[in-house]
Amino acid sequence: MERIVINDVGPRDGLQNDPTAVSPSDRIRLINALVDAGIAAVEAASFVSPRAVPKMAGAHDVFAGLDLARADFSALIPNRKGYELAKAAGAKSVGVVLSATETMNQKNINMSLDKATDVCREVLQQAVLDGLTARAYVAVAVECPYEGLVSPEKIEQLSEIMFASGASEVIIADTIGAANPAQVASLFSRLVSQFGAARLSAHFHDTRAMALANAWQAVQCGIRKLDASIGGLGGCPFAPGAAGNLATEDLVFMLEQSGYETGVDMNRLLSAVELAETLVQHPVGGRALAYLKKQAA
Amino acid sequence: MERIVINDVGPRDGLQNDPTAVSPSDRIRLINALVDAGIAAVEAASFVSPRAVPKMAGAHDVFAGLDLARADFSALIPNRKGYELAKAAGAKSVGVVLSATETMNQKNINMSLDKATDVCREVLQQAVLDGLTARAYVAVAVECPYEGLVSPEKIEQLSEIMFASGASEVIIADTIGAANPAQVASLFSRLVSQFGAARLSAHFHDTRAMALANAWQAVQCGIRKLDASIGGLGGCPFAPGAAGNLATEDLVFMLEQSGYETGVDMNRLLSAVELAETLVQHPVGGRALAYLKKQAA
Repeated sequence: MERIVINDVGPRDGLQNDPTAVSPSDRIRLINALVDAGIAAVEAASFVSPRAVPKMAGAHDVFAGLDLARADFSALIPNRKGYELAKAAGAKSVGVVLSATETMNQKNINMSLDKATDVCREVLQQAVLDGLTARAYVAVAVECPYEGLVSPEKIEQLSEIMFASGASEVIIADTIGAANPAQVASLFSRLVSQFGAARLSAHFHDTRAMALANAWQAVQCGIRKLDASIGGLGGCPFAPGAAGNLATEDLVFMLEQSGYETGVDMNRLLSAVELAETLVQHPVGGRALAYLKKQAA
Repeated sequence: MERIVINDVGPRDGLQNDPTAVSPSDRIRLINALVDAGIAAVEAASFVSPRAVPKMAGAHDVFAGLDLARADFSALIPNRKGYELAKAAGAKSVGVVLSATETMNQKNINMSLDKATDVCREVLQQAVLDGLTARAYVAVAVECPYEGLVSPEKIEQLSEIMFASGASEVIIADTIGAANPAQVASLFSRLVSQFGAARLSAHFHDTRAMALANAWQAVQCGIRKLDASIGGLGGCPFAPGAAGNLATEDLVFMLEQSGYETGVDMNRLLSAVELAETLVQHPVGGRALAYLKKQAA
């Protein structure tokens, strides 16, 4: 059986976008529950300004409270200062975020795309010098809420810069959940042929209910590492569980059923979903959760 | 753009499995709403015994109330008697159902697989003689609730018999929603290479939330005709919309977004979802419905 690695972004991308604030100690509990379930990689925290993103306050405490040998815990890094804080907190793996369009960078971080690219380049180079694992997200990689469709050429070009700056992995992120599987096929085929599947990862949101189909298509293109979020944590503007990140339990279930090995124990993963629900105090869960719970009962 | 034909089975497979009984005149309203939305094929009724399946009573009235020139309206046929009733009602297209396992046939219709195959063969041959369009479902084509996994060899063999008996099309049905996209890839690749994609159709249920991924994979194998059910009608043992047939609106949305032409107008399709909800008096809708409604608003 072929192995597929799941990177659970629930404790960061998920909780950052949830209406409920969750304390660092509770975020540690959730992260440990994911590792207990066999999840090998977790996006544990984001070293952003606690004034700008209060929900991610306490990132240092989160890293201080983790047994860093247990899994691949990564820290999301917005800039050089965040990098220094992450390094000081003991993070061994950092991820920078580069949005693929001019307007998204202007609106989001008040920088030009060129400037944002430079910041990512510098942080990646420093992380490599410091002996950390350096990763890069290329965000709004299919469609931007301001500029619309993003060209695969642009994504290839930005990925190339991130690799050249020292990124060991580039995560292609459909940040707003706008991708369809035809776009995934064409974008990932191109990137895999250019960079090789082993250095690429995929990140999907389920806004349009296509996240599983997109994940399947990415796997068909050779991708063997995917982001997902426990319980689909990560914002539910329309209905619980309907628009957040691709839910970890949905992805694990599809992959295991399809003959791939994820290393994840589904019963323990469902316990992590329950814990997530307790922490955010509202229903969570992916598309298959009702079925999975019934099977487990 | 390549065309993909959607056969809406909501008025039959959907309503037959819904807790609410819907009158023939209301079923006609729903069918017409689907055709108004651009759906080119509808499974309109089942000519079964009204004692055995009270929800499908009035199949004759349904066909009598339709303008048969407007779309490809098919009748589901369990046996020779049902065939005669469908023909008398004016149906121009009939579909027989052959479950792929011995136990499913015994439990469902108290026949051996051999006997059920003979009945299907006779009805198909008669339909061809009578100048009707003859189709065959091969049901539980991936997994049987009694016998477990079903071999692709068996599905190929039964499909071959159905084609040899005059079926112009064989619909491969994951009746219990147990298929994963890896199984879909292997089964449909095999069948397409044996029989050609133009004579095959696919029918998925969303029990495990993989229906869209499975549909996408079937399309990748060359399939250009799929069943779906308006609003995901067709039984929701766990949660509304979570376990029925693949919802027509989800499938149309994914295919149109992916660059295929379905001929369906999404706003009118959403009106049909609303009508379906009114008729069954409980929430219906596929995985993407909340998003689609918001977009339409």
